[in-house]
Amino acid sequence: MSGTELWRAPIESLAPRIADGQIDSVELFDCYAERIARLDGRLGAYVALSGLARKTAETARDEIRAGRYRGPLHGIPIAVKDNYTTSDMPTRAGQVAVKNEYPMVDGAAVARLRAAGAVLIGKTRMHEFAWGMETPPARNPWDEARTPGGSSGGSGVAMAAGLAAGALGSDTGGSIRIPASLCGCVGFKPTFGLIGRSGIIPHSWSLDTAGPLTSSVRDAALIASVMSGPDIADPGATGQILSLGTDVVNAGVDGMTIGLCRNHFFEALDEDVALSVEKRIEGLAAAGARIVEFSLPELACGLGAIFAIELASSTSYHALRLRDGRSEAMAPDVRLLVEMGRLVSAADYLHAERYRRTLCQRMAQVFSEVDIVLTPTSPLTAWPTGQSEVMLAGRRESALAASWRFTYPWNLIGAPAISLPCGKDRRGLPIGLQLVAAPQDDITALRCAAIVEAQLGGSALKIG
Amino acid sequence: MSGTELWRAPIESLAPRIADGQIDSVELFDCYAERIARLDGRLGAYVALSGLARKTAETARDEIRAGRYRGPLHGIPIAVKDNYTTSDMPTRAGQVAVKNEYPMVDGAAVARLRAAGAVLIGKTRMHEFAWGMETPPARNPWDEARTPGGSSGGSGVAMAAGLAAGALGSDTGGSIRIPASLCGCVGFKPTFGLIGRSGIIPHSWSLDTAGPLTSSVRDAALIASVMSGPDIADPGATGQILSLGTDVVNAGVDGMTIGLCRNHFFEALDEDVALSVEKRIEGLAAAGARIVEFSLPELACGLGAIFAIELASSTSYHALRLRDGRSEAMAPDVRLLVEMGRLVSAADYLHAERYRRTLCQRMAQVFSEVDIVLTPTSPLTAWPTGQSEVMLAGRRESALAASWRFTYPWNLIGAPAISLPCGKDRRGLPIGLQLVAAPQDDITALRCAAIVEAQLGGSALKIG
Repeated sequence: MSGTELWRAPIESLAPRIADGQIDSVELFDCYAERIARLDGRLGAYVALSGLARKTAETARDEIRAGRYRGPLHGIPIAVKDNYTTSDMPTRAGQVAVKNEYPMVDGAAVARLRAAGAVLIGKTRMHEFAWGMETPPARNPWDEARTPGGSSGGSGVAMAAGLAAGALGSDTGGSIRIPASLCGCVGFKPTFGLIGRSGIIPHSWSLDTAGPLTSSVRDAALIASVMSGPDIADPGATGQILSLGTDVVNAGVDGMTIGLCRNHFFEALDEDVALSVEKRIEGLAAAGARIVEFSLPELACGLGAIFAIELASSTSYHALRLRDGRSEAMAPDVRLLVEMGRLVSAADYLHAERYRRTLCQRMAQVFSEVDIVLTPTSPLTAWPTGQSEVMLAGRRESALAASWRFTYPWNLIGAPAISLPCGKDRRGLPIGLQLVAAPQDDITALRCAAIVEAQLGGSALKIG
Repeated sequence: MSGTELWRAPIESLAPRIADGQIDSVELFDCYAERIARLDGRLGAYVALSGLARKTAETARDEIRAGRYRGPLHGIPIAVKDNYTTSDMPTRAGQVAVKNEYPMVDGAAVARLRAAGAVLIGKTRMHEFAWGMETPPARNPWDEARTPGGSSGGSGVAMAAGLAAGALGSDTGGSIRIPASLCGCVGFKPTFGLIGRSGIIPHSWSLDTAGPLTSSVRDAALIASVMSGPDIADPGATGQILSLGTDVVNAGVDGMTIGLCRNHFFEALDEDVALSVEKRIEGLAAAGARIVEFSLPELACGLGAIFAIELASSTSYHALRLRDGRSEAMAPDVRLLVEMGRLVSAADYLHAERYRRTLCQRMAQVFSEVDIVLTPTSPLTAWPTGQSEVMLAGRRESALAASWRFTYPWNLIGAPAISLPCGKDRRGLPIGLQLVAAPQDDITALRCAAIVEAQLGGSALKIG
């Protein structure tokens, strides 16, 4: 691989070459910087670049040359979603034309990445306050007239276009997995609380989950393991550390039990998505996986529950902004949601939380019988930018509602869920496959995803 | 002590005599049964008596005679608040003239008491759905024209009048400690989650705490330790067991640090209550306790927070009852609260929960500096039944708001809190002293309470 093709490589293949001096971290940084300069004016993945990143890359190079290698993220350029506060870049959480109102400090996860030697190169564009699935005006590299998905859309674009070696996202109902699916990269939403959220602008406290978008499953495991651990400023943090050890290894699917929920997750979806996912299921069964079907009629009420929780939480978080009339600065779609949240009653909120518990109990039963649940990540591939409704299986549906139909249930139960590329549709747009494990069992999600990825012969799709 | 005075004795002195055959459990049961028959028509502590209790007492006697002594609750008559479901008695949660709508099953805590050999003699009267502090028409044994407090009022009456050796209560904002204070017995609200609540009719899921009303601190520790432990049907249960070991022992106050919050807890209270509590503080200081004063200005917003949470929770719990028009069967005061709860917005509910977290953090600081916080249990002694407002320090206040002013903050943070008798006012009405420890540190609450109790020369006040 020549120097100019470094941007195609996953971290897992870059890291050993950085460690032994084949590549230096400044060369790697410059490769991405050149691509950003050339491509990002059109793609819009970044909203800010760090003025200190090249210096950090130089420091990393010097440390590694001096024998002070810190580990596999040392010297690796990582993009940061714009709702993570950072000491060297402003944070606007997707707002445009407002002054920087958030502190210039690193939260626990960002601090851990810096301590591991990562080079944080810039802040990626997001749907305002993480309340939407489109991330305007970012463009999907696979078809620039289409959306990269959201809310971590800029991170998805950065991965698809080779503008970073890894990227951070946050996922409240699908905001990591949807852009990963639409842009053709890996997106990992760990168990709720695995990664502390200090310094991440809240959207919905009981759902928000931090995680990475990457070029491979192992890259996702690596970044999540570095970001995981105690965070005293996040009451939702479990404090556990994702320890990779020898758990994420090559293994067969023989003996793996895969659960398929045939209602909800296989209804009203694009034909190409369905075909691609069914083909993958056949491949896994042929390789020895046991397939178990189950149904979750409870999910008929899921959308109302997550909407009640998100609406209420965002309205509570933005209470001062609403009171002071500052919601006028929001984009109309986001402002509508934040203001609408005032109408949710506390009793409805508690009904939603009680529903959530029922769903958790039901899923605990399911996960006592299967290792992993497999679904499409999204019922559709990237839709045209600005189109608010889509047609799926002959039914008209809002693009927002359709896009997160298969992802939000896993936020409700806090389960680890990973999206990985699963071919393309007839238009050449990436399709995503989602694997979900029981809460706290991130290792199983990653292990199974690595197996499926190996079967597919690699993971991330990148434009040339 | 003659057989007819057994009802005056705490369990800690009855148990060894039952164990060695000096007293038999049928004799003990008959002593309480005789008093109930004679006194309870007027006092109204019980709403139902078990038809199987005497037989259970006979079985206990036979087992003990046969050498199968189960432990210190074996053969001990215990009264059960009417919101605990029981296999042998109906449950109405304080409702009158409605059919028994709750299952006839024992929850985890009741099952543990039965397994320990306790004789569950009857169900005690409570304020309807635990949503009030008066428990009509029960009468306070110290002045029958006055309220015993609530919502576990019947259990308070049973203890004050010697109608049971111990009684169960539940405490959402003070419902164990207030009747304990007004009736002159010990009331222990353990750490949230120490006692599983399966089978207890919910009032407010995140606040409801089960616990005992007793004649002594050691009795409270004993009953709570038997009731504690895993309860898979209660998602709030911590699963921990309160292990008494040698922790609840006689010890001095020397070296104990007692915190006094001079705002909130010493404002607008009855003069006799203030005098009695200050005298106790002086006594503890003289005996070597270190007194530390602190302030919690945050508490100015506490009442709104707990009201939002309780209103919302009870409305959510009673949603079907409201929808079906069955709230018409409720007493007007309770119906008002349950229907009013519909007006709480989800954003307000979340503001309340966020406030709660701030209070928890502040109290964690306080408990890093003090062993225990001492307050009056209630700013007033028993008020005349039916009186909705009281005068305190020249200010008119609703009796409901006044009565739980010093108890509800500890439900918000889930801390263990115990009320014990602290003399009487000029009318001869009992005054309560409250001791609070850090969440999970029930042992310290009980240990300090036992020390204070010993200083006071014993605990429960009983009418003759």
